[in-house]
Amino acid sequence: MTVLTDSYTAEREAIDAGLRTSVDRLPAAASRIASYHFGWTDEQGHESRASSGKALRPLLTLLAAKAVAGAAPHADSADGAELWRPAVPAAVAVELIHNFSLVHDDIIDRDETRRHRPTVWKVFGSTDAILVGDALHALAFEVLAESGSESVAAGTGLLAGTVRALIEGQLADTRFEERDRVGIAECVAMAEAKTASLMGCATALGALFAGGTEVQVKALRDFGFRLGLAFQHVDDLLGIWGDPEVTGKAVFSDLRNRKKSLPVTAALGSGRPESAELARLYAGAGPLDEAQLVRAAELVETCGGRSASRESAESLTASAAVGLGAGGLLPEAVAELSGLAASTVGRAW
Amino acid sequence: MTVLTDSYTAEREAIDAGLRTSVDRLPAAASRIASYHFGWTDEQGHESRASSGKALRPLLTLLAAKAVAGAAPHADSADGAELWRPAVPAAVAVELIHNFSLVHDDIIDRDETRRHRPTVWKVFGSTDAILVGDALHALAFEVLAESGSESVAAGTGLLAGTVRALIEGQLADTRFEERDRVGIAECVAMAEAKTASLMGCATALGALFAGGTEVQVKALRDFGFRLGLAFQHVDDLLGIWGDPEVTGKAVFSDLRNRKKSLPVTAALGSGRPESAELARLYAGAGPLDEAQLVRAAELVETCGGRSASRESAESLTASAAVGLGAGGLLPEAVAELSGLAASTVGRAW
Repeated sequence: MTVLTDSYTAEREAIDAGLRTSVDRLPAAASRIASYHFGWTDEQGHESRASSGKALRPLLTLLAAKAVAGAAPHADSADGAELWRPAVPAAVAVELIHNFSLVHDDIIDRDETRRHRPTVWKVFGSTDAILVGDALHALAFEVLAESGSESVAAGTGLLAGTVRALIEGQLADTRFEERDRVGIAECVAMAEAKTASLMGCATALGALFAGGTEVQVKALRDFGFRLGLAFQHVDDLLGIWGDPEVTGKAVFSDLRNRKKSLPVTAALGSGRPESAELARLYAGAGPLDEAQLVRAAELVETCGGRSASRESAESLTASAAVGLGAGGLLPEAVAELSGLAASTVGRAW
Repeated sequence: MTVLTDSYTAEREAIDAGLRTSVDRLPAAASRIASYHFGWTDEQGHESRASSGKALRPLLTLLAAKAVAGAAPHADSADGAELWRPAVPAAVAVELIHNFSLVHDDIIDRDETRRHRPTVWKVFGSTDAILVGDALHALAFEVLAESGSESVAAGTGLLAGTVRALIEGQLADTRFEERDRVGIAECVAMAEAKTASLMGCATALGALFAGGTEVQVKALRDFGFRLGLAFQHVDDLLGIWGDPEVTGKAVFSDLRNRKKSLPVTAALGSGRPESAELARLYAGAGPLDEAQLVRAAELVETCGGRSASRESAESLTASAAVGLGAGGLLPEAVAELSGLAASTVGRAW
């Protein structure tokens, strides 16, 4: 599947170059492992062309920067100038934080596959995965610090506060696994902390690094935050009904792990008679067999979990786009942000 | 044992207050675990008066700030004013980074005891320990960012670069465990990355946050760096000959783990006939029995490992103190830094 992020060639190249420059500063052992994680090399350290992911978050940063910079009185956007350039360090920092959290979360969740390849801990062991995650975390702040921007302090504070939210979300997620019942409000709060906060940070940092006003930063942060929550709804739908070829995960993977995702939590809390059967399947011990997985997916659908997440994703995306009306942003960039949102949320589910 | 750090009451209170304010910002589950780690609460979350450690690094930051601020032309140090105040955020950030690395290193090394209590991963599990370490890491940058100092960008860059060094040291340490032979130069480089770099960062950040000149920052960084390496030599001596009542570790603990510490590496590389016997003990499988531990300690001593580390610690401390002559620092603070160094390195071994 081609996603819209593929079209931003210059932006993606700038992000990629920034990431590589950062990773090159690490000690050799850590640099090698980080290069594997980003898909630049294979397990033996040979050059590779594996997927580095969609780079959605750093692209949001650059488009947010463009939306702000292009709207400034002195802006020269007539020739499609690269108004997003000053925000590249912010974009790189966001992507580093995202990948630090992926590397650590994969250890915690014992996930063995990411982007169709074995995860870092699976290949190099948990010790190296902890340390490489820590390295990417530190690099993010180093990139911001060395940007020369006037917004280093504000950006650093925003990014560090976002890491606190990510940790809050991941802690809640691990606690949910140990509990029988999780309310939909708790589950949404977890998704906001785990996913929406970093997307909101991505757009806010772009606006900050482009010298945006408070109103602009807030409008773009709200946009990213809503899009992030929509994204999590879609991700959770893909975790049940996604095509393994596209997601890189086994079919029904989230059900297999009895994950209390957004659609599952909505179904369990629906009060419909079938939700009790779903609760029993989730409460059982040992792995679910194929028939049980098929039945669980049916039950999530029957109890309205699938439609609830689909509708949430759509209404969040729509309201995110509407919110971009504030702050006098560059219309061309606003259209691009809305298009990116629609493309992201429109992934096949 | 009372160490000199106990006498800096006002400084220690300011550091403690800053740490508590930071930790309070974490989500409840993470805050509770971090409070346990710092010795403020017990495993059940009840108030406790366990040791939070010596707070050596943040004290170095504050004394370095005092050395700089007190030497400035406009300084009013006549009444012992709290010239170190502006550097408190830097001191807190350094202590947060130190503790993030302790929490993660304890997972990696499977260390079960720290400051006479079970380690975080041992009490709360590795998942929570990874996440709480990550939280302390992010908090460090948040404290710097919100300090209002003019040195936020420079300080953030310095601190992030130091985390890279810490990771390099920890990676080298884990690699050494898998190797039969480690040269003394490699072992010193590892200790520099793992310990000296953060002490050098501690003093440099204090100087930066007090508005120090380039010469002052460098002189104080060199001081901290040398003291840090001396400190590691002493720590490694304590890891073999330290009193368990003081160190909180079992007697011969580093030998028990076949740790390639500085004195052991010096002994193994001494070329003396007895070093071959030590190498055989270290190469064996299974735990060393008590007689073998006693013998290994004797061999390290016979091969000159004990005296080599003792002499290195003393000469590094002496040269560190001499280096403080540069940059026109406040003599009173220089004397305090030298005293702190002597007290640290003079720990019973």
